[in-house]
Amino acid sequence: MRYFTAGESHGPQLTAIIEGLPAQMPLTAEMINKELKRRQGGHGRGRRMQIEKDQVLITSGVRHGKTLGSPVTLTVVNDDWKHWTGIMGIEPLADDVNPEDIKRRISRPRPGHADLVGGMKYGHRDLRNVLERSSARETTMRVAIGAVAKQFLRQIGIETVSHVTEIGGIVTDPSSYENLSMDELRTVIENDPVYCADKDASVRMVSAIDDIKGRGDTLGGVVEVIIDGCPPGIGSYVQFDRKLDGKLAGAMMSINAFKGVEFGLGFKMAQKPGSEVHDEITWSKDRGYFRKSNRLGGLEGGMTTGMPIVVRGVMKPIPTLYKPLESVDIDTKEPFVATIERSDPCAVPAASVVAEHVIATEIAKAIMEEFRSDTITGLQKEIEQYRQYVKEF
Amino acid sequence: MRYFTAGESHGPQLTAIIEGLPAQMPLTAEMINKELKRRQGGHGRGRRMQIEKDQVLITSGVRHGKTLGSPVTLTVVNDDWKHWTGIMGIEPLADDVNPEDIKRRISRPRPGHADLVGGMKYGHRDLRNVLERSSARETTMRVAIGAVAKQFLRQIGIETVSHVTEIGGIVTDPSSYENLSMDELRTVIENDPVYCADKDASVRMVSAIDDIKGRGDTLGGVVEVIIDGCPPGIGSYVQFDRKLDGKLAGAMMSINAFKGVEFGLGFKMAQKPGSEVHDEITWSKDRGYFRKSNRLGGLEGGMTTGMPIVVRGVMKPIPTLYKPLESVDIDTKEPFVATIERSDPCAVPAASVVAEHVIATEIAKAIMEEFRSDTITGLQKEIEQYRQYVKEF
Amino acid sequence: MRYFTAGESHGPQLTAIIEGLPAQMPLTAEMINKELKRRQGGHGRGRRMQIEKDQVLITSGVRHGKTLGSPVTLTVVNDDWKHWTGIMGIEPLADDVNPEDIKRRISRPRPGHADLVGGMKYGHRDLRNVLERSSARETTMRVAIGAVAKQFLRQIGIETVSHVTEIGGIVTDPSSYENLSMDELRTVIENDPVYCADKDASVRMVSAIDDIKGRGDTLGGVVEVIIDGCPPGIGSYVQFDRKLDGKLAGAMMSINAFKGVEFGLGFKMAQKPGSEVHDEITWSKDRGYFRKSNRLGGLEGGMTTGMPIVVRGVMKPIPTLYKPLESVDIDTKEPFVATIERSDPCAVPAASVVAEHVIATEIAKAIMEEFRSDTITGLQKEIEQYRQYVKEF
Amino acid sequence: MRYFTAGESHGPQLTAIIEGLPAQMPLTAEMINKELKRRQGGHGRGRRMQIEKDQVLITSGVRHGKTLGSPVTLTVVNDDWKHWTGIMGIEPLADDVNPEDIKRRISRPRPGHADLVGGMKYGHRDLRNVLERSSARETTMRVAIGAVAKQFLRQIGIETVSHVTEIGGIVTDPSSYENLSMDELRTVIENDPVYCADKDASVRMVSAIDDIKGRGDTLGGVVEVIIDGCPPGIGSYVQFDRKLDGKLAGAMMSINAFKGVEFGLGFKMAQKPGSEVHDEITWSKDRGYFRKSNRLGGLEGGMTTGMPIVVRGVMKPIPTLYKPLESVDIDTKEPFVATIERSDPCAVPAASVVAEHVIATEIAKAIMEEFRSDTITGLQKEIEQYRQYVKEF
Repeated sequence: MRYFTAGESHGPQLTAIIEGLPAQMPLTAEMINKELKRRQGGHGRGRRMQIEKDQVLITSGVRHGKTLGSPVTLTVVNDDWKHWTGIMGIEPLADDVNPEDIKRRISRPRPGHADLVGGMKYGHRDLRNVLERSSARETTMRVAIGAVAKQFLRQIGIETVSHVTEIGGIVTDPSSYENLSMDELRTVIENDPVYCADKDASVRMVSAIDDIKGRGDTLGGVVEVIIDGCPPGIGSYVQFDRKLDGKLAGAMMSINAFKGVEFGLGFKMAQKPGSEVHDEITWSKDRGYFRKSNRLGGLEGGMTTGMPIVVRGVMKPIPTLYKPLESVDIDTKEPFVATIERSDPCAVPAASVVAEHVIATEIAKAIMEEFRSDTITGLQKEIEQYRQYVKEF
Repeated sequence: MRYFTAGESHGPQLTAIIEGLPAQMPLTAEMINKELKRRQGGHGRGRRMQIEKDQVLITSGVRHGKTLGSPVTLTVVNDDWKHWTGIMGIEPLADDVNPEDIKRRISRPRPGHADLVGGMKYGHRDLRNVLERSSARETTMRVAIGAVAKQFLRQIGIETVSHVTEIGGIVTDPSSYENLSMDELRTVIENDPVYCADKDASVRMVSAIDDIKGRGDTLGGVVEVIIDGCPPGIGSYVQFDRKLDGKLAGAMMSINAFKGVEFGLGFKMAQKPGSEVHDEITWSKDRGYFRKSNRLGGLEGGMTTGMPIVVRGVMKPIPTLYKPLESVDIDTKEPFVATIERSDPCAVPAASVVAEHVIATEIAKAIMEEFRSDTITGLQKEIEQYRQYVKEF
Repeated sequence: MRYFTAGESHGPQLTAIIEGLPAQMPLTAEMINKELKRRQGGHGRGRRMQIEKDQVLITSGVRHGKTLGSPVTLTVVNDDWKHWTGIMGIEPLADDVNPEDIKRRISRPRPGHADLVGGMKYGHRDLRNVLERSSARETTMRVAIGAVAKQFLRQIGIETVSHVTEIGGIVTDPSSYENLSMDELRTVIENDPVYCADKDASVRMVSAIDDIKGRGDTLGGVVEVIIDGCPPGIGSYVQFDRKLDGKLAGAMMSINAFKGVEFGLGFKMAQKPGSEVHDEITWSKDRGYFRKSNRLGGLEGGMTTGMPIVVRGVMKPIPTLYKPLESVDIDTKEPFVATIERSDPCAVPAASVVAEHVIATEIAKAIMEEFRSDTITGLQKEIEQYRQYVKEF
Repeated sequence: MRYFTAGESHGPQLTAIIEGLPAQMPLTAEMINKELKRRQGGHGRGRRMQIEKDQVLITSGVRHGKTLGSPVTLTVVNDDWKHWTGIMGIEPLADDVNPEDIKRRISRPRPGHADLVGGMKYGHRDLRNVLERSSARETTMRVAIGAVAKQFLRQIGIETVSHVTEIGGIVTDPSSYENLSMDELRTVIENDPVYCADKDASVRMVSAIDDIKGRGDTLGGVVEVIIDGCPPGIGSYVQFDRKLDGKLAGAMMSINAFKGVEFGLGFKMAQKPGSEVHDEITWSKDRGYFRKSNRLGGLEGGMTTGMPIVVRGVMKPIPTLYKPLESVDIDTKEPFVATIERSDPCAVPAASVVAEHVIATEIAKAIMEEFRSDTITGLQKEIEQYRQYVKEF
C-alpha cells in the first residue's frame, strides 16, 4: 500500500490516492465519513470545525461497494471554496494584478509553524503559500486513508482504538480503563468530550481547556493508540529499515505538531531495572505462546509479539496563539508581535483520532507487504493459517 | 545515500555497503575506527568488549584516501571466528551430522529478545539463527556508516555530539552543560566513564551501574543527540513521508532496545501552555533569522529551522539477565527459568554513540537527497550559497 | 518527483497526484490540455476519441498559475459517466440485486489483454473489473503528468519531440527529417495525420491503416522520442539501478501494448562492427565536448552524454479485433470466438504522444533527483552553472 | 529482495549484499561459482578471463548450507590485487606524492565508455576513477546475485536459460531449437563455444569473431533469456511502475553495453497485423488455461501469463578497440587517437549469462514481493496452492 495526499487548506478540495489495496474488500464512503466526523469533534476545537463537515467521495478503485485492486481515489471538497477563489485561484493572475495586492498575503511568519522555513525553502514571499499546505487540514486525508486501513485490518481480525492520556499535565490513571475490552474502551472514549477513558481526568481536562482558552493560550497532550489482534512476526530484525517500531515511530512523528513517541513503558524504562521491564513468555494449548505482561508494548526486535501494540505520541500545544509571540516581518525585517488569530485551544482529542489512523495505516501497509494481499479473501485464509502455525510453533 | 549492513554476531565478518556518497571526500579507516572504539567503551560494558577490538577495512569506493563516488564497502572481521567455525559454519553439514547436535543450539527463547518471534517468522528451530543477527553486534556497522556520515557532515560545517542524560532514573541537570560549545561538550563526554556531561550525575550513574550489576540486574537510560550547523529547510511539510522529524524518529527507534524518541522539550510539551513551548523568531544582520530559544529541538513543520537539532531516545535495560525471567522451551513447551548468561549491566553509554551515528546518517542522507551531491566540493559551494540566501531571505 | 494515476475507464474521473515538483514554476491547465488533444488525434483512432474531449482540472499545488511545491492534483472528468453509473457505481448494490445481473458483465477474456490473468490475480469473475483499469485510457494521465514534466524541462532548456517511424512494416527514411531542428520536426509532425515526419511514408501508412481497417484487423508500429538539451551526466554507472537508460527503458515498456525499446542504432548494433557504432569525442571552445555522431542515442555508461537522447519503442497492434481470436469462457470453460467490438485499427500515432510524455517524465524525475529542485529559479541557475562547468571540464 | 554491488575492477575485491532472501533455502558457494565460470567463458573473450578465476565467498546470511533470512554477503577477491596496491591503494598518498604521478593515470576518455561523462559528473581528472567502477567487471556480482536468484526460482519450479541468437549480423534459425526442452536447450548451449543453440549459426559466429579480431574490431549481438514455469499474475496493470515487463526491460538495459530489449516477437510486431500477434487462449482439465502460441513472450498487461517469458537484449560491440576512434585529452583539450588496448573482440556469449542472471534476479524479486517469502518452505506451499487456484479459475 502506497499513498499520497494533496490539497491546500483553502483550496478547492483535498485528494488522496491509495495504491495497492487488495481487491474484494467491502468499502464505502460512510466507513470513512464516520472517522472524519470523530476527527472534527472533541472539546477544544474552534469554529472552523463547525464550518467544515468533511464528506469523502470515492472516485476510483471501488465498484458496487468492493475494492477492485486498482488505486482508490478519495476527495473531500471544500464547501467554503467559493469564498476563496480569488485568494487561492489556480489560474494565473490577470496582467494588471500585482501579486502583492492579493488579499490575505502573509509576510509575517508565525513561530511554531512551517511559515518561515517553508518560505525560504520554496522561495515564497507570500507565506500563505506555505501554510495552506503545512496546515493540519492535511490530517483529514491521513484519517481518510487510515479509515480504509482500519477497514482492511478489521477483515483480518485486528482492532484499533485511541484515547487521550494527558492534556496540560493532567494524566489519566490507567487502572480506570486497563481492564476494559477494546469495544468497551472505544465506547467510553466515543462518549467522552476529550476522548479520554478516565472520567475523572476527563472532567479536569475539559476544565483546563476552558481555562487556557480564557487566557488566550493553548494546551498539548499525549495520545495512546492500541492495536489488538496483530499476529506475531510483522516487521523484521534483519535490516535496520524493516523494524516495525521504527516505521510506527516515523509515522507518528510525521503528524503535525507531534514531538515524541514511545512504546509500552516508554521513557519510564530509563528508571526501572531490566527485571521489571521485560515480559515473561508463557504458553498454553489454547492460546499458544503469549506474554504475562505487555510492558514492551507489543514489539520486540522490531517485530510484533502478538500482544497489543501500545504506542503513545506527544502533541505540542497548537502554535496559533491568541497570546502572541514575537517574530520578524520578512519584507521589512522588523520585529512584530503576531496578530491575534482564530485558534483551537486544544486539538489533542482530534490528534488522538489522527494518530490511530496513521498507526493503522502503517500496520496495514506492513501486513500487505509481508503477506500476499491481492485479494482480501486470500489474505484472510493466509493469516488464519499463519495464526495456527505460530500457535503450534 | 543508501546502505545495508550484513553479518552475524559470531560469523566471519560484518559488512556494510554505502551507496551514493559524493566523490572527492577524504575518508580513511582511522576516522571510522575512532568511533568504533567509542562504541566499545563506557562503564558497564562486559567482557566481550575486551575481546573485540573492532577495526574496519575499506574494500571499495575509496582511492588514495578519497571517495570515488562508487559504493563504499566496510568490513569488520571477527577475530574470534576461528572458535566459531563449527557452530556457525557456512558450508552444509556433513551427511552424518544431525542439526540438533550442533553445539550451542538454542531452543529456549529469552524474554525481551527477538528469539521467539524471529524463530516463528523464519522457521528456525535453533534460535541461534535469530539471535546471531538480531544481536546489538549489528550496531557496529551502524556506527561505521555513521562515521562516514559524520565525515560528510563535517565537510559542510555540521557537527554532532551525543551524551547520556539519564541512567536508571538518575537524570542530568542541563544547567551543568547547556552553555558549553559543541567542542567543549564533546571533550567533557569523551572523558567521562558514562559519556555524561553532568559530573555529579555521572558519579551517581557509575555507582548505580555497579550496584545493579551486583544484584544481577540491568539498567536503561536516555541519550541525547545534538546536531549543530544544519541549514534550515532540510525535510519538507508537503508530504507526510518527507518530514525530517519522522525520518529521525524512525531511525532512532530502529536501534536495538530503543523504545521512545522525542525532540526538544519532548513529552514535557504535554504539561506546558503553548506560550512556553514555541520559539520566538528574530533576525540580525549578522546571523539572519534565528530563534530566541530552541524548545522545539530544531525542527518545525518537518523541516530543520537552522537551530541545533536536539533529539533524545530511551533505551530499555538489556534483556540478557543474570536475574532470570520465565520463558518456554519451544521443543517441549515446558516453562523454564532462563539460564544465567554473560551480560552488560548497562549499555546506555555505548548506545549514545550508536544514536549519534544513526542520526548523523539520517541527516547526511537527507542533505544528499536535497542537494546535488555528486562531489563534495560542489556541495560545499552550493551549501554556502544556500546559507547566504536564507540569511538574506 | 513521484506520482500515481488512478481511475477506471468508465468511472467518474481519472486522477493523478504529482509529488515533489519545484515551486515557482508556471503551470496552467491549457498546457496540459494541448497535449491531451494530441493524444486523442492521429489517423486510425475510432469513435470513442470523438466522445471524449479530455480536459484536465488542477485542484491542488498551483496558485495563480504557479506551482507551490506542494502536490499537484490533476483530474479528468468522464463526461459519459452518467451513462455508466449503474454499471460502474461506487456504492454497494441493493440487497436484491444479483452481481451476475449487472449489465456488461464480462466472462470472456480477450486474448492480448489483461482480462484473464487480471481476473485470476484479483479474484474477479466479472472481467470488467480488470479491463476498466488495464485499459489504455490510463495513458491520459500519463500524458497529463508528462505535460507537467515537459513544462519543467522547458524551463531548463530541454525540448522533447516524438514521431512515428514505422506502421505495419512501412518504415520512414531518416534522411527526410534528420536535418530538421526540433521546432521544424515538431511542426511537420503536428500537421501529419499519423505524426510521421516522412511525407512519403505517411501517405503509405494512412493507406495501410485504411486497408487494415477494411479487413477488420489492426496494425502496430514504432515510435521515436527525442530529448534535446539534456546536460551530460544525468544517471550514473555506480549502481545498476541508477542507470538512466534502464529507467527510460522501464518507463517505455510500462506503456500499454509496448513490447520493445531501443536506443540510438538499437538492435542494428548486433550487425555492425564496433568501429561503426561508437561516437567519436571532440571539443571546441564554443561548444565544449561533443560527439561527432549520435549512434548510441545520447547515453553512455547509463548517463546522458549531452547529445540528444534518441529512444524508440515498438507498440503491438491493438488486440481488440474485429477479426476475432479464440478464447475460453471462464464460467463454462467453453471455447468461444471473441465477439466483434468497436476498435481503433491503429493507435501508433497516439502512442507516440504517450511515449514522449512518459520519457519526458522520467528525464524530469532524474533531474529533480540529482539537482536541488525546490524552486525552478534556483534550479535554472544551478543547471546553468553546471553546463558551464562541463564545457570547461 | 534488495541488493547492492560494490567494488572496483582492480580493487581488492567485489562485494554484494542481498537483503530479504527467505530463510531455509539451500545455498552454497559452488552454486554461484558454477555460473561465474560460465560468465568467464565463450569464444571471443581475451586474456583477462584467464587471469581471473572468480570464486565467491559467502560471509553472512548462510549457516550450514541454508539461508538464515538475514542478509547474504558475497565477495570475490581480486587475485591480482597485489599488483595494483600502489595504483589503486585505499589509504591517502604520502605527502610527497603528486596525484598526477600515479601510474596508469588516464586523461584520455575512450569513446563508448563512461570515462568522459563520469569524470565530469564526479569531478575526476584521473579517469581511471571512473572506469574502475563502470567496467563490466561489475557484472561478476550481477551473476553472483542472479545465481542466488536462480537457486530461489528452482525451489518453486521455475527454470531459466539463455542463449545467443545473433552475433555480427549472423542470426540463428529458431526452428533448430524451438522444440527443445529447457534441459536440452541448456545442454546444447553449455557445450557451444558461443552459447548458441543453432549449430550452423554457431560455426559462422565463431568464424566472424576470429575474423573481426584479426581486423582489430569488435562485434555485438543479441541474447535471449527464457524463464519457464512462472505462475500467471506476477506483476500488475494497476499502476505504471508495477508492470513486470517494465521492470524486466529496465533490468536488462542496466547491463553494461545493452542498448535494446524486446519481448516475444518484439520489434517484428510493427510489421504484422494484430491477428498474427496475439495468442489465443485455451483450456484443458489437465493444464488449466494456456495459450496456443507465445508470440507476446509470456507477458500481457504487465503480468506473466504462465507461458514462458521470452526476452531479448542487444549488446553493442565492446568499445575498447584496437581500431581506434578519435577523442580529446581532457588536460590539453587536444584530439588524439585512442591508444591500442587489450580487448575482447566479442563478449556476447558472456553477456547472455549476465542477462539470464539479471532477469532471474528481477523475477525472483517480483515473486518475493508478491508472495509471503520469509521461509522457502512456506513459499513452496503457497505457490503450489496458487497454481492450483489459477488452474481452476
